[in-house]
Amino acid sequence: MNEKMRELGARRSAIRELFEYGKRRKAEIGEENVFDFSIGNPSVPAPEQVRQTLLRLLTEKDPVALHGYTSAQGDPTVRGAIADYLNRTYEAGVDADLIYLTAGAAASLTISLSALLNPGDEVILLAPFFPEYRVFVERTGAKVVSVPADPETFQPDFAALEAAFTEKTRVLLVNSPNNPTGAVLTEESVKKMVRLLEINRRKQGSPIWLISDEPYRELVWGDAKAPYLTQYYADTVICYSFSKSLSLPGERIGYVLVSPRAENVSDVYAAICGAGRALGFVCAPSLFQYMIPDCLGLTSDLSVYRANRALLADGLRGCGFRVVSPDGAFYLFVESPEPDAGAFAERAKGLELLVVPSDSFGCGGFVRVSYCVSTDQINRSMPAFRKLAESYGLCNRSN
Amino acid sequence: MNEKMRELGARRSAIRELFEYGKRRKAEIGEENVFDFSIGNPSVPAPEQVRQTLLRLLTEKDPVALHGYTSAQGDPTVRGAIADYLNRTYEAGVDADLIYLTAGAAASLTISLSALLNPGDEVILLAPFFPEYRVFVERTGAKVVSVPADPETFQPDFAALEAAFTEKTRVLLVNSPNNPTGAVLTEESVKKMVRLLEINRRKQGSPIWLISDEPYRELVWGDAKAPYLTQYYADTVICYSFSKSLSLPGERIGYVLVSPRAENVSDVYAAICGAGRALGFVCAPSLFQYMIPDCLGLTSDLSVYRANRALLADGLRGCGFRVVSPDGAFYLFVESPEPDAGAFAERAKGLELLVVPSDSFGCGGFVRVSYCVSTDQINRSMPAFRKLAESYGLCNRSN
Repeated sequence: MNEKMRELGARRSAIRELFEYGKRRKAEIGEENVFDFSIGNPSVPAPEQVRQTLLRLLTEKDPVALHGYTSAQGDPTVRGAIADYLNRTYEAGVDADLIYLTAGAAASLTISLSALLNPGDEVILLAPFFPEYRVFVERTGAKVVSVPADPETFQPDFAALEAAFTEKTRVLLVNSPNNPTGAVLTEESVKKMVRLLEINRRKQGSPIWLISDEPYRELVWGDAKAPYLTQYYADTVICYSFSKSLSLPGERIGYVLVSPRAENVSDVYAAICGAGRALGFVCAPSLFQYMIPDCLGLTSDLSVYRANRALLADGLRGCGFRVVSPDGAFYLFVESPEPDAGAFAERAKGLELLVVPSDSFGCGGFVRVSYCVSTDQINRSMPAFRKLAESYGLCNRSN
Repeated sequence: MNEKMRELGARRSAIRELFEYGKRRKAEIGEENVFDFSIGNPSVPAPEQVRQTLLRLLTEKDPVALHGYTSAQGDPTVRGAIADYLNRTYEAGVDADLIYLTAGAAASLTISLSALLNPGDEVILLAPFFPEYRVFVERTGAKVVSVPADPETFQPDFAALEAAFTEKTRVLLVNSPNNPTGAVLTEESVKKMVRLLEINRRKQGSPIWLISDEPYRELVWGDAKAPYLTQYYADTVICYSFSKSLSLPGERIGYVLVSPRAENVSDVYAAICGAGRALGFVCAPSLFQYMIPDCLGLTSDLSVYRANRALLADGLRGCGFRVVSPDGAFYLFVESPEPDAGAFAERAKGLELLVVPSDSFGCGGFVRVSYCVSTDQINRSMPAFRKLAESYGLCNRSN
């Protein structure tokens, strides 16, 4: 047996652990008495257009074709439609043969990392980061180099980033809008980051890859915009998923895109195809592939998240908590009133508030509060948050 | 970049290559003029019950729950329903917590192999075998030991199998009904195989795993029965997919099952969960998970394959070809009239007949002819097969 795999299976991720705890707890004391802010499971239904498209496909399309194998990299018409949409929206300059359809964001990442990395390579992650990144990177035999973000803005700390590059650096993996902080990389940050990539790339004489994990691309608030990274750096690979934009996390549908300006672009695309093959991913789920062309550019009703975000941030600030003001995703990053965020999350759990300590994201002192929940849950949870704040002697501001 | 992945992506599998060639060729000269016997894409539509279940789920179930994340190993109710079905049908003695839902057969295999193997281990494959097995095994750092089957019956050659075991053997991977030969392991073969496993297991003092890849389980003809292997050997892992039985190959839905009698069974299941996590597979496509309970035990209309099988086998024998009489799956294994099966397949291609040389399956001298095609295609292809036979001076029997 593979001991590493056993361990990974026995010790679930902290988020999944809390998610499972929440399910058990709800069964025990009633759904309405648990305030589960633990997981990024969209709370807003998929757009009606998704359902209508699926019903139409099931009613009109020949089932043998509908449920049959597509090309390993995905149906060419679907890939073409995605390319058209990206060219229209971001001037991405891509074609169907730079896109590889995948079974969701995790697949996009494991495939890209397997394609680009060799054992001993280094991957820079900006902490806090989604904890499975470490699992995905280490499976390839590469090493994680974690660089803490600026703790005020959660933009990269550029001095720390500069110092993290070595001759073994092969990949910088970013996630904007960010899970868990909600931060969106500004254009200024992107330009500074690219400058560092270019300098180190020249030093090494071989590509350093920028992998951009973007399942939250469409979830940006206020005036923020998430720059499209292929426009800033040639050796970019984008990992996308429709999980969050279309509220389809369980359906596992997304894609990998290789920048048309990447060095040895056709070799890189071949390596993506090869990694998909070796990991067992050929052909993303076909019904959901065929759904894509009719639903590109749509999102589920984001106004709910927008309202939740304001309500929860104001409420928590009203209780006296320090809340980072993020521009994207559906997470608030809340400072723990005691140094040990795990202990803070445990105390919250005692009040049936489920939040994820930031330690699992490679950075201490915060908890992640998902606001992809019902607005009603936020309203009903406020007395518990207030009690939690009072137990730390906060709450001055609410008096 | 990872050179191995690039190579795997650049050199597609011979089957996929031929499949893509077929698509191009059909566009050039018309669908009806290409006789594509290259791929195992079911030609019979999914049972109507599949469509009705999907329509009902899309109409009645809350879309947030329907398309949301399930537990990483799959929805517990769905896993419970599968366990009940297997206990009823095969007295499998399993429960929900021995089943891990996956995105299809390839995923079931890569997850199981990653869970059970360490670099340097040996995996015995019975040739001919599905060529991706080699890719999946070698990705884990383990080594393939290929043992040729008996060339008359395509049951295992037990003397050769016995000689193949070493102290590094960790897994024996079998596939019954078999792709590409169609052979079904008889109960006698299973018992002999298990005896060898037991002997070598005792010698080593640690488990040797039997992985049974069974996407064709329900596709057996005549009186043949595919034994349920957990009943014969404790350390068995079954990899199942609904691709062939329900004609859903594009939808990527299947499962891994760990035998309840396996040594350290909960550790093995944990390793399966861990491997799913590390490879990026958590949560199989949710709509198709929820379809399962209503469709267990159903199959698409197998009478079409039964008729095709007889028609094609008789037709090819009538032309003078030697055809292995298989009991299962939807493939005929046809002896090449010249030693080089690749050259034979190339000559067939010149007559617009697409068949896969057996060399890609780790055994020379045959071609695989898929009969999951329209009955009409078989009828219309016969003049071309006749011409092919004539070009080798066969066809005596048809005169």
